[in-house]
Amino acid sequence: MNETFFLRRSIRKYTERPVAQDLLDKILLAGTRASTTGNMQVYSIIVTRDQEMKKKIAPAHFNQPMITSAPVVLTFCADFNRFNKWCRQRKAEPGYDNFLSFMTAAIDALLVAQTVCNAAEEEGLGICYLGTVIYNADSLIETLQLPKGVVPVATVTMGWPAELPEQVDRLPLEGVVHYESYHDYSSSMIDDIYSEKEARTDTAQFINENNKETLAQVFTDIRYKKADNEYFSEALLEVLKKQGFMK
Amino acid sequence: MNETFFLRRSIRKYTERPVAQDLLDKILLAGTRASTTGNMQVYSIIVTRDQEMKKKIAPAHFNQPMITSAPVVLTFCADFNRFNKWCRQRKAEPGYDNFLSFMTAAIDALLVAQTVCNAAEEEGLGICYLGTVIYNADSLIETLQLPKGVVPVATVTMGWPAELPEQVDRLPLEGVVHYESYHDYSSSMIDDIYSEKEARTDTAQFINENNKETLAQVFTDIRYKKADNEYFSEALLEVLKKQGFMK
Repeated sequence: MNETFFLRRSIRKYTERPVAQDLLDKILLAGTRASTTGNMQVYSIIVTRDQEMKKKIAPAHFNQPMITSAPVVLTFCADFNRFNKWCRQRKAEPGYDNFLSFMTAAIDALLVAQTVCNAAEEEGLGICYLGTVIYNADSLIETLQLPKGVVPVATVTMGWPAELPEQVDRLPLEGVVHYESYHDYSSSMIDDIYSEKEARTDTAQFINENNKETLAQVFTDIRYKKADNEYFSEALLEVLKKQGFMK
Repeated sequence: MNETFFLRRSIRKYTERPVAQDLLDKILLAGTRASTTGNMQVYSIIVTRDQEMKKKIAPAHFNQPMITSAPVVLTFCADFNRFNKWCRQRKAEPGYDNFLSFMTAAIDALLVAQTVCNAAEEEGLGICYLGTVIYNADSLIETLQLPKGVVPVATVTMGWPAELPEQVDRLPLEGVVHYESYHDYSSSMIDDIYSEKEARTDTAQFINENNKETLAQVFTDIRYKKADNEYFSEALLEVLKKQGFMK
């Protein structure tokens, strides 16, 4: 397999070099070959190249600078709107206004998104996912004019790398893979799995910068807080209702 | 990029040749390099190689024959259990018992799943996704012994291809890609986008076999019925509640 799989890192800084349309088409085409439930292809991809549009969607991504500095921003959406329209034009009554259908479409969209990213990286492009897409889906729905049946689930910035950051750590393989059945983690297993991450110099630095005692506290108290998670959970469920997926 | 991206098809028949453990490790390792929210890696992969275990999970997948005939079955799970345990062992109180956290973990799991598939395909292996994983998640939770905080979101069978099926059709790129904002589909656009699919000989055959008038009716009346979707939506929401993601 391509060595890119092992060398990858998220790229947040891009050069001025544009992403040629034919290259983008090739990458998106690779994405469309990804597996899709029943070959329904219940997703859509919104390409943002226009600087004004990038400025409009930036607040939904908490103004992370990649949005306006990347030549291309891709928003992958769960999309039953197109399929439903097709059904109705073909004497068929769609029954896809429910949570299972949202998950089916979200999975379609995410498999396409990741194939697009893998293909782009093999071409030397850099990408970065923005988790904020599911926090502020309502704002993106408005700005990107997503109709009922469409919910954004992944945003990716893409461009030619202007940085080569150090590769971030990952948990050891045995920390995330289970054989035959789930082997729940004992406290010593947790210690083992996280030991390398916790021993890193940059981890210590990160804890200090955030005035915390442990790395886990940086996550629970600062980066991904309970109150925020609960607030955005409500908002996302509201979006699913509004977009017609919670019948 | 690797031409595999464009040549891919789902493979449902596998040779007797086993998938070597070091190759599987390499593929799974490639998967762990996929993007993950905040480097939390809130997913787990369950590898099923044991024939008895395959037989036990087969019913959850409506006994689709790939489960028992594939040398390897992978179940990718949204997993906050490991992360929560780590937090609690490090004086941090996790707040991840909500829908946003489920979606975050599901996205992590799906990006890993698709990277594993892309890497496997570049090695010449064949894969097939089974959408049934989210239909019968409760049964898989029991069989694979998934604790609270863990929900299966993707199942993939993997092995050396014993078939080379014709590549299935896809909608034209312009049918799934939008520029700057979503351009909703007019009825003539729907006709255009679906025209190639509908003109195929195998489509006509498929409609006939199913005694239907249109291809869309095969989806709405037979393959993905409203009543089934609603039944499995309830079941999946129940699973999210039971696994601690709907606080």
